[in-house]
Amino acid sequence: MPDKAKVLLDPHFRTMTEIFSAADRERLHDTAEVVWGRDDPMPPEDAREALAEATAVVCSEWRYGPLPDDTPDLRAVISVSGAFPNQLDYQACRERGIRVLSAAPAFGRQVAELALGLALASCREIAAGDAAMRAGEERWLHAGNASTFMLYDQPVGFVGYGALARSLQPLLAPFGVRISVYDPWLGDGFLRRQGVRPVSLPELLETSRFVFVLAAPSSENHALLSRELLERVRPDAVVVLVSRAHVVDFDALTEFVLAGRFRAAVDVFPDEPLAAAHPIRGARGAVLSAHRAGSVREGMWDIGQMVVDDLEAIVAGLPPRRLLAAEPELVGRVVRP
Amino acid sequence: MPDKAKVLLDPHFRTMTEIFSAADRERLHDTAEVVWGRDDPMPPEDAREALAEATAVVCSEWRYGPLPDDTPDLRAVISVSGAFPNQLDYQACRERGIRVLSAAPAFGRQVAELALGLALASCREIAAGDAAMRAGEERWLHAGNASTFMLYDQPVGFVGYGALARSLQPLLAPFGVRISVYDPWLGDGFLRRQGVRPVSLPELLETSRFVFVLAAPSSENHALLSRELLERVRPDAVVVLVSRAHVVDFDALTEFVLAGRFRAAVDVFPDEPLAAAHPIRGARGAVLSAHRAGSVREGMWDIGQMVVDDLEAIVAGLPPRRLLAAEPELVGRVVRP
Amino acid sequence: MPDKAKVLLDPHFRTMTEIFSAADRERLHDTAEVVWGRDDPMPPEDAREALAEATAVVCSEWRYGPLPDDTPDLRAVISVSGAFPNQLDYQACRERGIRVLSAAPAFGRQVAELALGLALASCREIAAGDAAMRAGEERWLHAGNASTFMLYDQPVGFVGYGALARSLQPLLAPFGVRISVYDPWLGDGFLRRQGVRPVSLPELLETSRFVFVLAAPSSENHALLSRELLERVRPDAVVVLVSRAHVVDFDALTEFVLAGRFRAAVDVFPDEPLAAAHPIRGARGAVLSAHRAGSVREGMWDIGQMVVDDLEAIVAGLPPRRLLAAEPELVGRVVRP
Amino acid sequence: MPDKAKVLLDPHFRTMTEIFSAADRERLHDTAEVVWGRDDPMPPEDAREALAEATAVVCSEWRYGPLPDDTPDLRAVISVSGAFPNQLDYQACRERGIRVLSAAPAFGRQVAELALGLALASCREIAAGDAAMRAGEERWLHAGNASTFMLYDQPVGFVGYGALARSLQPLLAPFGVRISVYDPWLGDGFLRRQGVRPVSLPELLETSRFVFVLAAPSSENHALLSRELLERVRPDAVVVLVSRAHVVDFDALTEFVLAGRFRAAVDVFPDEPLAAAHPIRGARGAVLSAHRAGSVREGMWDIGQMVVDDLEAIVAGLPPRRLLAAEPELVGRVVRP
Repeated sequence: MPDKAKVLLDPHFRTMTEIFSAADRERLHDTAEVVWGRDDPMPPEDAREALAEATAVVCSEWRYGPLPDDTPDLRAVISVSGAFPNQLDYQACRERGIRVLSAAPAFGRQVAELALGLALASCREIAAGDAAMRAGEERWLHAGNASTFMLYDQPVGFVGYGALARSLQPLLAPFGVRISVYDPWLGDGFLRRQGVRPVSLPELLETSRFVFVLAAPSSENHALLSRELLERVRPDAVVVLVSRAHVVDFDALTEFVLAGRFRAAVDVFPDEPLAAAHPIRGARGAVLSAHRAGSVREGMWDIGQMVVDDLEAIVAGLPPRRLLAAEPELVGRVVRP
Repeated sequence: MPDKAKVLLDPHFRTMTEIFSAADRERLHDTAEVVWGRDDPMPPEDAREALAEATAVVCSEWRYGPLPDDTPDLRAVISVSGAFPNQLDYQACRERGIRVLSAAPAFGRQVAELALGLALASCREIAAGDAAMRAGEERWLHAGNASTFMLYDQPVGFVGYGALARSLQPLLAPFGVRISVYDPWLGDGFLRRQGVRPVSLPELLETSRFVFVLAAPSSENHALLSRELLERVRPDAVVVLVSRAHVVDFDALTEFVLAGRFRAAVDVFPDEPLAAAHPIRGARGAVLSAHRAGSVREGMWDIGQMVVDDLEAIVAGLPPRRLLAAEPELVGRVVRP
Repeated sequence: MPDKAKVLLDPHFRTMTEIFSAADRERLHDTAEVVWGRDDPMPPEDAREALAEATAVVCSEWRYGPLPDDTPDLRAVISVSGAFPNQLDYQACRERGIRVLSAAPAFGRQVAELALGLALASCREIAAGDAAMRAGEERWLHAGNASTFMLYDQPVGFVGYGALARSLQPLLAPFGVRISVYDPWLGDGFLRRQGVRPVSLPELLETSRFVFVLAAPSSENHALLSRELLERVRPDAVVVLVSRAHVVDFDALTEFVLAGRFRAAVDVFPDEPLAAAHPIRGARGAVLSAHRAGSVREGMWDIGQMVVDDLEAIVAGLPPRRLLAAEPELVGRVVRP
Repeated sequence: MPDKAKVLLDPHFRTMTEIFSAADRERLHDTAEVVWGRDDPMPPEDAREALAEATAVVCSEWRYGPLPDDTPDLRAVISVSGAFPNQLDYQACRERGIRVLSAAPAFGRQVAELALGLALASCREIAAGDAAMRAGEERWLHAGNASTFMLYDQPVGFVGYGALARSLQPLLAPFGVRISVYDPWLGDGFLRRQGVRPVSLPELLETSRFVFVLAAPSSENHALLSRELLERVRPDAVVVLVSRAHVVDFDALTEFVLAGRFRAAVDVFPDEPLAAAHPIRGARGAVLSAHRAGSVREGMWDIGQMVVDDLEAIVAGLPPRRLLAAEPELVGRVVRP
C-alpha cells in the first residue's frame, strides 16, 4: 500500500475549526497525511522542509520564501483566504504544473445572500423602518411606503461578473429583473450566453435601478466608480457595495448619499473599522453593515468542504473542480486589497 | 354599434390614482363606460340605481344594501381591498351568475418580497447591524457574524398556502430550501404537486428554521399559533409574520421573542398603530415593520391592472383570470380582520 | 360517527383499473362510500335513484337524463373523459352549487411530453432517420443532417393556451424559445404575465418555426387553421397537431405537407382510425402517431389521483383544486368532438 | 497602431462556411489577421513558418510536427473538431503558457437535444408509431400505448458528467426526474453541488429507467458498459447512447436489445457506416440514428462563435471562457476514438 499523500496545512489567520466541519476534517484525514494542521502559523523553515514531500499546501498566504526547486510531488497551492497568494512565483508554478487555487467561490453564496438582503433592506426600507418602530416614529401602511419601491421587474446592473455575480444572478431571477453587466475581463459573447447584457459602465449606471458592485479589487479598478461616473447614477437608484471599497471613490459615494442623490447599501469601507466620525454613519439613504457578507460561521465551512473536495481530486490525479484556479492572464492584474 | 358596458367604479377607501396607472385608466375607459369613478364614496342610493344597468361593480366594500332583484347585466362584483366584501349575499350572486372577485393576488408579489427581505434582515442581522453602525457599536467581520445564519438549504415552513405563499415560493427556490406547508383548506395531493410537503402544524414548527406566517385571517384561525404551539418553535428559528396578527397569540409571541426563545420579523400587529409602549418595540430578536408589506405605491397599480384585465374579459363574455374568485365553500369561513 | 359521503362512480367507457392505482382506490374507499364502482355502465334508472343521496357523481358522460330536483347532498359532477358532459344542465348545477369538473388537466403532462417528442422527431428527423437505418438507406453525419434543425432559440407559437399549453411551456423553457400565443378566450394581460406574447393567428403562423396546435375543440374553432391561414405558415416550420383535428382544415394540411410546403407532426385525425389510403400516410415531411398522446397507461392514473384528491376536498367541504371546473362563460362554447 | 495579432486558421476537415457564420467571420477579421483561412489543408511547412508570428492556431488536428522552439506570441492551440489534438506536446504547451482548447462545448446543445428526442422516441414509441402508420399497421389510443411509458418523474442515470451531461440536465429538469451520475473523474462533492447523486455504475444501471451514455471516449473506458454490467440494466429501461460506441460492449448491447431485454436508442456505432447486415438494424426495441447528434448545420456555427469569442479574449490578453481547456491530469487519459 502506498504512502498517503502529504498535505501541508497551515491555515493561519483562519483556524482549523473555523473552516472545517467535523465531517470534512474526517474526510481530510482519510485523504491525506496532514502536516502541521494547527491554528498558529507554521514556522517558515519547517514549511520549506515539508514542501519536499508535500502534494499540496493549504495556507492563507505564501509565507515560505522562494518556491524550493525540489518539490517533486507538489501539485497545488491552495489559499483559504478568498484571494490568491501575493508572494508566490506563479510562472514557476505554471511551468512545474502546480495549480494555484483560491477559496473565493466559497464566499459566493453568503455574499450574494447579503447583497440581496441589503438591496431589499434599502428599497423596502426595512432597516429604517425597524429603527423607526423602536423610536416610536414609524409611519403606517401607505404613509410608511411613501418612498419605497420594489425589486421586481427592475433594471439591474452588475459591476463585475465573477463568483459573486454568478451566485447573485439566480437569487434575482425570480424577480424578473433584466441584468446588465460591465466586466472588462469577459467577452460579450460569453456574457450574453449567461443571460446578461454586456454594457459600458456609464450606460450601466445611467440605466440601472439597482447597481451591485461585485468586482474583486485589482490593480486596474481602483476608484473605478469615480466621482464623475457616480454622478451618472439614477436618482432613484440603490448602489449595493459588497466586494471592496477599493473600486469606488468612497468620499464621492458618501457625499452623494448624504446629499440624497441616490441610496446606497454598504458592507465594505476604505478603512475598517470605519472611523467613528465617518459621515456615512449618519446617512439616511444608506444601509450599513460592518463587513459581514463573507464571514458567516456556517458559510466558512464551505471553504473546508471545497478544499477537501479538491484535495481528494488532486490526490486521485484528477483536476480540482470547486476552488478557483489562478489564470496566468489575470493573476498579475489582481492585487490583495 | 352596441352601447358600452357600464362599470360602477367606487374605489373609496382607495383612490383612483392609487390603483390605476395612466395606461390602465385609458384601457378602462376603452373597455367600459365608467359610472362614478371618483375618490369619494358613491352615495349608496345612487349606486343602487346604477346597478340596474351595470355589468360590473368595482368597490372596496359592499355598501349598497341588499342586492337589488333587477340587475340583468351584472356579471361581477370586484373588491379592490384585498378581501372579499362582507355584506354581500354570496348565494344570490352564485345563483344569478355574478362572480365575486378580490384583488388579493395583487398583493402577492409585494408581500412576498418584503417577507424575504424581513427573513434575510433577521438571519443576517441587517437591521440590527445598521443600527449598530449608526450607534458606533458595530462588530466587524466574524465578530459581527457571531449569531447570524444563512437561508440557503434551510428547512422552511409556510403556515398557509394561498396567494402570498405562491408568490414567495419562487423567491425561495434558488436558496435550495425545502418547504413544508400547513394549510387545512388544501389537500395533500395538491400540495405535493406544488413541490411542497404537507405537514401538521406542530411538525412544521418543530422542524422549520424559517416559519413564514402567510395565512389569511378567517373565522377559524384566530390565534392558531397559540402559546402552546409557539413553544414548539425551534430555538434557532425566525418567525416571519406578514399576513395578519389575527393568526398568532401575539402576547405569547412577544414574550418568547423578548425572552430570546426565537427570533421574529413582524409586519402586522393586533392593534395598529401599535401602542407606543408595546414591549415588542424593544425586542432585540425582532425586526419590526409598520404594516408596510402590501402598500408599495407601484405595487398598488397591480390592482388596477388586474381589474382592467378582468373587466376586459368580463365585457367580452369571458371568464376573469387574474383576480381571485370567491369560492362558496370558503367564503363563509373568511372574516375581514 | 356520521355516515360516509356517497359517491356514484360510473366510469364507463373507462375502467376502474385504468384510472385508479391501487393506492388511489384505497384512498377512495377511505374517503367515501362508493356506489356502483364497476366497469360496465350503471343503469340510468339506478343512477337517478342513487343521486338522491350522492355527494358526487364520477362519470364519463351524463347519461342519467334531467338532473333530479332532489339531490340535497350533490356537490360535484366529475367527468373522467377529458371533456365536460354534454347532456348536463349547467345552469341548474350553478344555481344549486354543484360543481362540474373535468379530468382534462390529467392529460396535460402526457400530451405535452408527446408534443415535445414529436417536435424533436420532426426537426431532428428521428423517425425518418430510424426508418432509413432499417432500410439501409441512411446518410451519416453532416449528410444525415442536411435538412435538420434545432429547437433551441426558435420562435414558437401556441394555438390555444389551456392545460396542454401550460404543461408544454415548462418543457420548452430550457430551450430558450420565445413563445407567442393565440387564444381568443384569454386576455393579453393574463398571457403576458405567463411569460408569453399574445399575437394574432396570422402573425403567429408567419413568425413561428414551431406551431403547436393545442386548442380544445369548440363550437367556434372548427377549421380555425383554414387553408388560407395555413398558407401563411413558414416554409421552414413544423406544425405539431396534438389537440384535435377539428381545429385544422386537414385536407389543406395534408396537401401542404405532401407538397413539401412545411412539415407536420400529427397525433389526431378527422376520422379515426385513419383511412388506410389517406394520402398523409405517405408524406415524407410528416411524423404520424395514432392518437396516442393522451392514453399512456401510467398517465391515466393521474385521472384517478386527481379525482380522489378532489373528492377528499369536496367531502371535507373544501373547494376542489386539481380537476378543471366548468366556467359558465365557456361551457356553452365547447363541443365534444 | 500595433500590428494585428495573427491567427493561423486551418480548419480542414471542417470548412470555413461550415463553422463560421457571416457575422462571426466578420468579427474574426476585426480581431486578427487571418493566415491561410482556407478549406484545403495548409501545407505543414508553411504552417510551421507561420507559427513564428502566430498568436493562435485554429485547426482540427496538429499536423505540423514538433512544436517549434520559437513561437514567442503563441498563446493558444484551438481544435475545431470536438476533441483535443493527438500529436501535440502538451507539457511544452503548459510550460510555455500555450493553452490547448477544444470546441467540445459547441456540441453540448445539439447532442443533448437529440438525446432527449431519442429518449422520448423510445419511451413513447414515436419512431415505431410513425412506421406503423406508414405500414397501415398502427394501433390506436390505448392499444397503441400498451408498452409506452413517460419520462416524467423517472429515475435517470448519466454515465459521464461532462459537457453533454451539463447540457442535457436542464432539458430534463422540467420532467421532475432524479439524476444519478457515474463519473470517475469527478468528486462526489462537486457532483452533489450540481444537483445530481453520485453512484457506482452498477447501482446506476440497476436503478435508472433512462440510462444516458454521455462519457467521452478515453483510454480508460473502452467497453466500460460490459456485458456483465449491461445485464444489470432494468428490463423496463431505455439505454440512450450518444457519446461513443467505444464505451459500450456493442455486441452485448445488440444482443440484449434483440432479445427484448431492454430498449436502446443509439446514435453511434463501433464501425460507421454500420454494416448493412448488422443485426441491430432489425431490433424492434431500438431507435437508430446515423451519428447525427453533433452535426446539425446551425449547431456547427456554435463552433465558430466560440472560437471567435475566445480569440477576442486571447488577443485582449484575457483568459478564454467558452471553449474547453485541456487539463494536464486528463489529457493523457483521453484518446481520439
